[in-house]
Amino acid sequence: MSAHSSRDVRRASRFEVLHQIYALGSASRNQLAGASGLSAATVAAIVSELLNWGVLSEVSIEDSGGGRPRARLAVNPQRGFVVGVDVAETYIQIDVFDLALQVKASGQQTLDAEDNQPGAVLDRIEHGVAAMLTEAGVPQDSVVGVGVSMPGQVDRVGGVSVFAPNFSWQQVPFIKLLSDRLPLPLYLDNPLKASTMAELWFGVGRKVDDLAVLTIGTGVGAGFAVGGALVRGTGNAAGEWGHSAIVIDGRPCRCGNRGCLEAYIGARGIMQQLREHMPDSRLLRSDDQVATIGALAEGLAADDEAATAVLRRTARYLGVGIGGLINMLNPAVIVVGGWVTELLGPWLVPAATQWAAQHTFDRTFNATRIELSTVVGNPVSLGAGIFALEGFLVSLGVSTFRDSARHAAAIATTTLPAG
Amino acid sequence: MSAHSSRDVRRASRFEVLHQIYALGSASRNQLAGASGLSAATVAAIVSELLNWGVLSEVSIEDSGGGRPRARLAVNPQRGFVVGVDVAETYIQIDVFDLALQVKASGQQTLDAEDNQPGAVLDRIEHGVAAMLTEAGVPQDSVVGVGVSMPGQVDRVGGVSVFAPNFSWQQVPFIKLLSDRLPLPLYLDNPLKASTMAELWFGVGRKVDDLAVLTIGTGVGAGFAVGGALVRGTGNAAGEWGHSAIVIDGRPCRCGNRGCLEAYIGARGIMQQLREHMPDSRLLRSDDQVATIGALAEGLAADDEAATAVLRRTARYLGVGIGGLINMLNPAVIVVGGWVTELLGPWLVPAATQWAAQHTFDRTFNATRIELSTVVGNPVSLGAGIFALEGFLVSLGVSTFRDSARHAAAIATTTLPAG
Repeated sequence: MSAHSSRDVRRASRFEVLHQIYALGSASRNQLAGASGLSAATVAAIVSELLNWGVLSEVSIEDSGGGRPRARLAVNPQRGFVVGVDVAETYIQIDVFDLALQVKASGQQTLDAEDNQPGAVLDRIEHGVAAMLTEAGVPQDSVVGVGVSMPGQVDRVGGVSVFAPNFSWQQVPFIKLLSDRLPLPLYLDNPLKASTMAELWFGVGRKVDDLAVLTIGTGVGAGFAVGGALVRGTGNAAGEWGHSAIVIDGRPCRCGNRGCLEAYIGARGIMQQLREHMPDSRLLRSDDQVATIGALAEGLAADDEAATAVLRRTARYLGVGIGGLINMLNPAVIVVGGWVTELLGPWLVPAATQWAAQHTFDRTFNATRIELSTVVGNPVSLGAGIFALEGFLVSLGVSTFRDSARHAAAIATTTLPAG
Repeated sequence: MSAHSSRDVRRASRFEVLHQIYALGSASRNQLAGASGLSAATVAAIVSELLNWGVLSEVSIEDSGGGRPRARLAVNPQRGFVVGVDVAETYIQIDVFDLALQVKASGQQTLDAEDNQPGAVLDRIEHGVAAMLTEAGVPQDSVVGVGVSMPGQVDRVGGVSVFAPNFSWQQVPFIKLLSDRLPLPLYLDNPLKASTMAELWFGVGRKVDDLAVLTIGTGVGAGFAVGGALVRGTGNAAGEWGHSAIVIDGRPCRCGNRGCLEAYIGARGIMQQLREHMPDSRLLRSDDQVATIGALAEGLAADDEAATAVLRRTARYLGVGIGGLINMLNPAVIVVGGWVTELLGPWLVPAATQWAAQHTFDRTFNATRIELSTVVGNPVSLGAGIFALEGFLVSLGVSTFRDSARHAAAIATTTLPAG
């Protein structure tokens, strides 16, 4: 248990006010009180502090229907900049954001399978960050933090890439190595956590507290939020949904096990399905995952028989996987994303939803929306930027309660049961 | 978001102090400050309030090595009583607890499959509670709350038994009906939530914040805690682990679907396994689940071939199910309970653990302990009593943060990442 006091509740309240401003874009003090549930006096005091720190600014005066004019508050975009880095399996994306999390510059480099060892990745991040800052016209000393998402298992406290299966990395002290090249506050996490943070700040998480964020690409995984807080698990390893067994003694998975969900609904799994269904399908583009999944999408649009059969099988497995999540966690919303979803989502998600309905209780299923992400841009680099932003806010004295349920004592009014 | 203020943090701090006293049995103010992370001054103020309300009492004076004597504090057992009711599929157990949650009287009645409609169950609860209060010598007006656990899906806020599959109940306004017979504060939930609360208060949850509590009996389900808070899901339906598909198009399950985990590792599933393996096994006791599972346990102790084969298959399915939980939630501890576990646990749990290891990443698996429950007595009736206790504490002005992450702003110091 961490120490808590009225100073702590103040820190948490500051975060709540800021989070509402990020969600709303700009807001009056009255709106903030309404949206956060804090008293007008508390909001006024917090806003005053945040204005003094330069985190907020007053952006305009509006006449509220004849009453006295009220200031609208917004995040001060010039207060500092954060960088979000998405190290994916085939590319590195680097985005520079202002403090309002608007993109100032964005770039993507291809990452070759032959060139993905730590030195090469660190080189690309170092030079890519420098190039993007130049493009954005942001001097390095205005950057308040850099967040990096690495695939696989990540020890965020120690800054270690514990296991990145596609890169064959094990126990790489990533943040230590990167800090020699980028002397800035650095934050490490993985894409499941990053994309869930993006949903919490800018997607469906602005409205609901219990959600699952699915990523279907080369890898398959999930991020969860419960009560508005990111679920990390005891070692930051929660979310390995893609490596739950969906078929006992099933297909080999690249993780070394058999029958994992990823081996059926990840890009390689879908290609395997196509090979099994029609080994000489014209949709198969040898080992090119993106081209094959793209060809499948075109095939679906044209009612191609093989594409339809493969989609049907894939939807079945995905539906069982989603049904399992609904049964276990009863989320309000399941957001489906990842590059495979971007290509196949319009066919895959509705078909999988029908199967999920078969594997859940009606009332629970009906309480869950299954939808595509509404986050603009790359949710992983955005989420990595949010981790950096949160670190900066904490350094100012703002608690990021949505990322800290583990050590949190909550302050709440419990619903009184009937009776 | 609920309103929060320094009054709210005070309510949460009161709960933290009380929770520590329940976990420790009794404690000095210094110990409470150490265990809760609150300041000595805050603890002193809270203890003073709780003493005034009669919730705590000073139980003894100890000489702390020559220094001035310090009072030890304990819950005042005479302040009031709570009742916990576990409506299970084949019995109803009713326990009367004092405010320190010590059992004062306990009784169990058989529930016949022919006699489990709402009127009959309500009759048995009404008369059973009266009988147990008499046995405990507790007048009804000393009871501060009655918690009832009903199997299946429960709307705890509305007090409705939404769906109890084994009883064929649908939308029974249980609390409304019961309040006509027992004019006391009443609380409804289900056994998955109740047994998880028992672990949080008196089991492994005293030491870890992320846990899963598995129940394997006639039904199969799970309760989860994340960051020390019960995971309810958006409609209180989280935990239906037993109805996740473990075999696509597999065995019919009593829920109406096919291939559910419960159809393989629940008591009926295990009996089916035995029938399939050896239709004329002497271990089969026609339709008597408890007798058959008991005979299997005896068979295992005697190295019976059929019993060993059935155990091996069951452990495989359970291991896959546990592996999925570890992958998804990365809990620190998985507690396995339920009446099937009580009979088969010593063989089943170690064998399933080996399979779970095969279906998870080494680091994640090694971070998880899988163990039998250490809660004394029936965790479901105890958990039901805890729900009643929490309701009483809330009515006094104590927030029950462990049950309210949904509406909570946390007050915490976030770990600063490396960099």
